Amino acid sequence: MTRRIVALSGGVGGAKLVDGLARVLPPDDLTVIINTGDDFRHLGLWISPDIDSVVYALAGLSDPVRGWGRRDETWRFMEALRGLKGADWFLLGDSDLAMHVERTQRLGSGSSLTEVTESIARVLGIRVRLLPMSDDPIATQLQTDEGWLNFQDYFVRRRCLPAIRDIRFAGAATARASPQALEALADSELRLVVICPSNPFLSVEPILAIPSIRAALMDCAAPIVAVTPIIGGQAVKGPAAKIMQELGLEISGEAVARRYAGLIDAFIYDRSDPAPGAVDGVRFFEAQTRMDGTQDREELAKAVLAVAEQGKKGA
Amino acid sequence: MTRRIVALSGGVGGAKLVDGLARVLPPDDLTVIINTGDDFRHLGLWISPDIDSVVYALAGLSDPVRGWGRRDETWRFMEALRGLKGADWFLLGDSDLAMHVERTQRLGSGSSLTEVTESIARVLGIRVRLLPMSDDPIATQLQTDEGWLNFQDYFVRRRCLPAIRDIRFAGAATARASPQALEALADSELRLVVICPSNPFLSVEPILAIPSIRAALMDCAAPIVAVTPIIGGQAVKGPAAKIMQELGLEISGEAVARRYAGLIDAFIYDRSDPAPGAVDGVRFFEAQTRMDGTQDREELAKAVLAVAEQGKKGA
Repeated sequence: MTRRIVALSGGVGGAKLVDGLARVLPPDDLTVIINTGDDFRHLGLWISPDIDSVVYALAGLSDPVRGWGRRDETWRFMEALRGLKGADWFLLGDSDLAMHVERTQRLGSGSSLTEVTESIARVLGIRVRLLPMSDDPIATQLQTDEGWLNFQDYFVRRRCLPAIRDIRFAGAATARASPQALEALADSELRLVVICPSNPFLSVEPILAIPSIRAALMDCAAPIVAVTPIIGGQAVKGPAAKIMQELGLEISGEAVARRYAGLIDAFIYDRSDPAPGAVDGVRFFEAQTRMDGTQDREELAKAVLAVAEQGKKGA
Repeated sequence: MTRRIVALSGGVGGAKLVDGLARVLPPDDLTVIINTGDDFRHLGLWISPDIDSVVYALAGLSDPVRGWGRRDETWRFMEALRGLKGADWFLLGDSDLAMHVERTQRLGSGSSLTEVTESIARVLGIRVRLLPMSDDPIATQLQTDEGWLNFQDYFVRRRCLPAIRDIRFAGAATARASPQALEALADSELRLVVICPSNPFLSVEPILAIPSIRAALMDCAAPIVAVTPIIGGQAVKGPAAKIMQELGLEISGEAVARRYAGLIDAFIYDRSDPAPGAVDGVRFFEAQTRMDGTQDREELAKAVLAVAEQGKKGA
């Protein structure tokens, strides 16, 4: 079994491109390293939002409108929880709950997050290899005008309203990376690493914050290609643009490419945007990066693979 | 606040009479000591079926047809869990799940089952005092022709099919009874103890198996009145009749009264049944014990209270 493509992914945007790659590649070719910095314990349940977004996308279970959670979802649990005056700020759909309950139970029985994810993916018929970036707890935390906030407190409870001053990934510096992820990045057959169009600050940088993953990326022979999460000065979804502004960055694909400079070989910006200026060591390519449907996902996946052919390191 | 009536209750049948008592008494008058021998951990959730049956009955949330769980229930969680190949032998409704998740979380945060039950009852507007028989784990276990089974394995997974040879309440002998329950039974204002028409073997005897509760019942000045769970040689619900047969007992109210002899002062049999023969120390009264609707519950509650007037200890 060859695993020639590795993707780094966060939630929704990343999941869409992963789905596109899964559709145009032999499924055994693709390994996805997924951000777990958003993971948290809530109501006693271990919730891994980005893993679930990728799993649901690949299993064809994603909600196409909300952009998170499961399609055809119902909310009876939340209504009943409100009736008990339980914590209702984080929405858990009735079907989605099965994932959290099942995962939490298996983790409690001694399985690792990697094992649970692999097993659930298999049951759902997913052949792409899905790897949490680490089995150790890593917590994305935001320094805001309201003090340090845990990720979900910022993202859901406070709806991304507090202005961000700094971001840290608690536990990342000492976390052990997923051994399978390191293996995939060290594979001599590796042909391409894709940084998906996920939020650079909240979804990709937590992965890069694990020293052994960053080192493996720096060392890997394959080209590393990032796809812009910014189109027309806006994030397709989520607070990426707002955070760039708060951190004093220009809101553009170019600024994202600069953020990844030194790591990536190529950057794909949206074809509706002007060509970015020069960024050291980065070759720019254009593509339609907005993914409204399955065909868009496949087209972008093909564009990424085409860039890989042109974007080899040192080429 | 006086608490002049104490009821011992299991699940569905007991919950109905408790509801009737709550409807005809000032709510502050009633304390219910509830069996927890059926409690178990499932999918990481702490499930207390009998407490929930009483809570749902008193909150007006019981399903009137199924006889357990919540009315207007949906089953999306179970469907999704099956999709993940999770353990699907124990049905958990979407709304009902809120109770288990909330309880489990609070227990995990250090609250006792007594505290959690009191708090949930308060939120749901229940003024009757609901007390788990103990905060210590007590597990009803059945010796069957398939070996020793845990209660839910027997009751749900094996649908009460294995023949019962013996029953034990693991942990009961050393369990600390609910201090509030002992207090209620020792109250000088106590006027009546009702043993609800719950399964004698699986719902009432676990409560009686806690030595300090049995002692408090033996010592209490108020009459103890039991209501038959057997009508016309059948249990209204559940395996009571089947168990009586397997244990070599006659299937009748009288046999239940004999089981409680030495403890109870009076026994209410169903008026459709013949008057039982003599049982030492037990006065028999008849009433309509089948509770098909709210009015039946209230009528039976009134009959129980009337018996208390005639059935004082030593009278």
